[in-house]
Amino acid sequence: MERPLILITNDDGITAPGIRALVEVASQLGEAVIVAPDAPQSGMGHAITVSAPIRLHPVNVFEGLVAYECSGTPADCVKLARHVVLKGRTPALCISGINHGSNASINIIYSGTMSAAMEASLEGIPSIGFSLLDYSHNADFEAGKPFIRRMIEWVLAHGMAHGSLLNVNIPNLPADEIKGIKICRQADARWVEEFTEAVDPRGQRYYWLTGRFVNNDEGEDTDIRALGKGYISVVPSMHDLTNYRAIDRLKNLENL
Amino acid sequence: MERPLILITNDDGITAPGIRALVEVASQLGEAVIVAPDAPQSGMGHAITVSAPIRLHPVNVFEGLVAYECSGTPADCVKLARHVVLKGRTPALCISGINHGSNASINIIYSGTMSAAMEASLEGIPSIGFSLLDYSHNADFEAGKPFIRRMIEWVLAHGMAHGSLLNVNIPNLPADEIKGIKICRQADARWVEEFTEAVDPRGQRYYWLTGRFVNNDEGEDTDIRALGKGYISVVPSMHDLTNYRAIDRLKNLENL
Repeated sequence: MERPLILITNDDGITAPGIRALVEVASQLGEAVIVAPDAPQSGMGHAITVSAPIRLHPVNVFEGLVAYECSGTPADCVKLARHVVLKGRTPALCISGINHGSNASINIIYSGTMSAAMEASLEGIPSIGFSLLDYSHNADFEAGKPFIRRMIEWVLAHGMAHGSLLNVNIPNLPADEIKGIKICRQADARWVEEFTEAVDPRGQRYYWLTGRFVNNDEGEDTDIRALGKGYISVVPSMHDLTNYRAIDRLKNLENL
Repeated sequence: MERPLILITNDDGITAPGIRALVEVASQLGEAVIVAPDAPQSGMGHAITVSAPIRLHPVNVFEGLVAYECSGTPADCVKLARHVVLKGRTPALCISGINHGSNASINIIYSGTMSAAMEASLEGIPSIGFSLLDYSHNADFEAGKPFIRRMIEWVLAHGMAHGSLLNVNIPNLPADEIKGIKICRQADARWVEEFTEAVDPRGQRYYWLTGRFVNNDEGEDTDIRALGKGYISVVPSMHDLTNYRAIDRLKNLENL
């Protein structure tokens, strides 16, 4: 039987330990092809490169596997993978990550990892973004691997609804403390911003974004709650941002 | 009575004609404060600047109005406006645009204009992104102005649901051919990508993103349909990307 084609990308860059962990799992389950940014792209959201050329180079980073580094954003990587590297072969699955750091709750909208997954879902490819709740370069991805493997197998077997993708976040716990998998909704949390203000060596003022994550969503069914209890959170997500409940209330605007 | 504080931003940059049109309308209705990118930021999606300093400078571009240009992304502009420029004063409304070009349908996820509006909505500020279906620098924003004015007045009077924002797109038509306003859902359309492949002056290959917009969504209630009929489309949008309908189907994953 032909092995399923699995496209792998991330936003931390092709040399990040997180993507290596994902490649290791995926290459046991199918034909892994990697197209990932040549430098870290965290916080890129769904940026695409429209006003500049994009570079794409084959690299020998994952032994025996087809891999390219790309100067573009994570979303660019998926587009280039589809249309240049794979030349029309359609992956059975696109996986993105493993991100170094959480993409739970509102982080999804800032996340290059999740945008890459969403880009694939727009093209009808089942896709999953994986993140580990550890921002450090030396994060330990071992404990999540058996769960990642099962989720990939499940999606390969069952497919995914049109336009849907999965946002998977893994608590930073030893294997024997991970309680299992919970299907969740996105917690209605946000970042409370602050800016560090300072002066550069040339005497010019600058600002640097910082902030803290605040969750006032008390729901039992949120990703933040599941993670706090030691579960891996899985939020089925989508690219339709319509607030359907608000449509009726706004109908008056049509009669202005 | 105190005039409402209206924060204005965009993604085409502070010198774009589109933001000038929006400032003109808004400054008749409230106290307009402008914080916008110092260069075009189209296609930035919900990118934020986490790994670099951001610059912010007052500029005298809009006579008599407080205006700052910012080296960051549109989402950064809103964050800096809130926390540095306005120092905790909360705007009654944030408006973004007028974008040179459509942000209807799937374009919302790539759009810096809409990300700025969403960033404001995350902070509990009613917000609207405006776009005109004309990509040219010399686009004519006149015909849309009376409608923009009425929508701003309506939102100032009625507020907006928590976490909600409006994605407003204006057809590129003379005033007497605009049929009115339609409340819509986001059409399930997408970009079919192609890449121009070429070689730069130094002999290195590069790729440049191009594509064409394809709408296979036949629904009568979509933004694309409304625009095609000559209406201004208004899609209430939100930052909750959960695909609620997919949750039940995925519950099996919990028992793997």
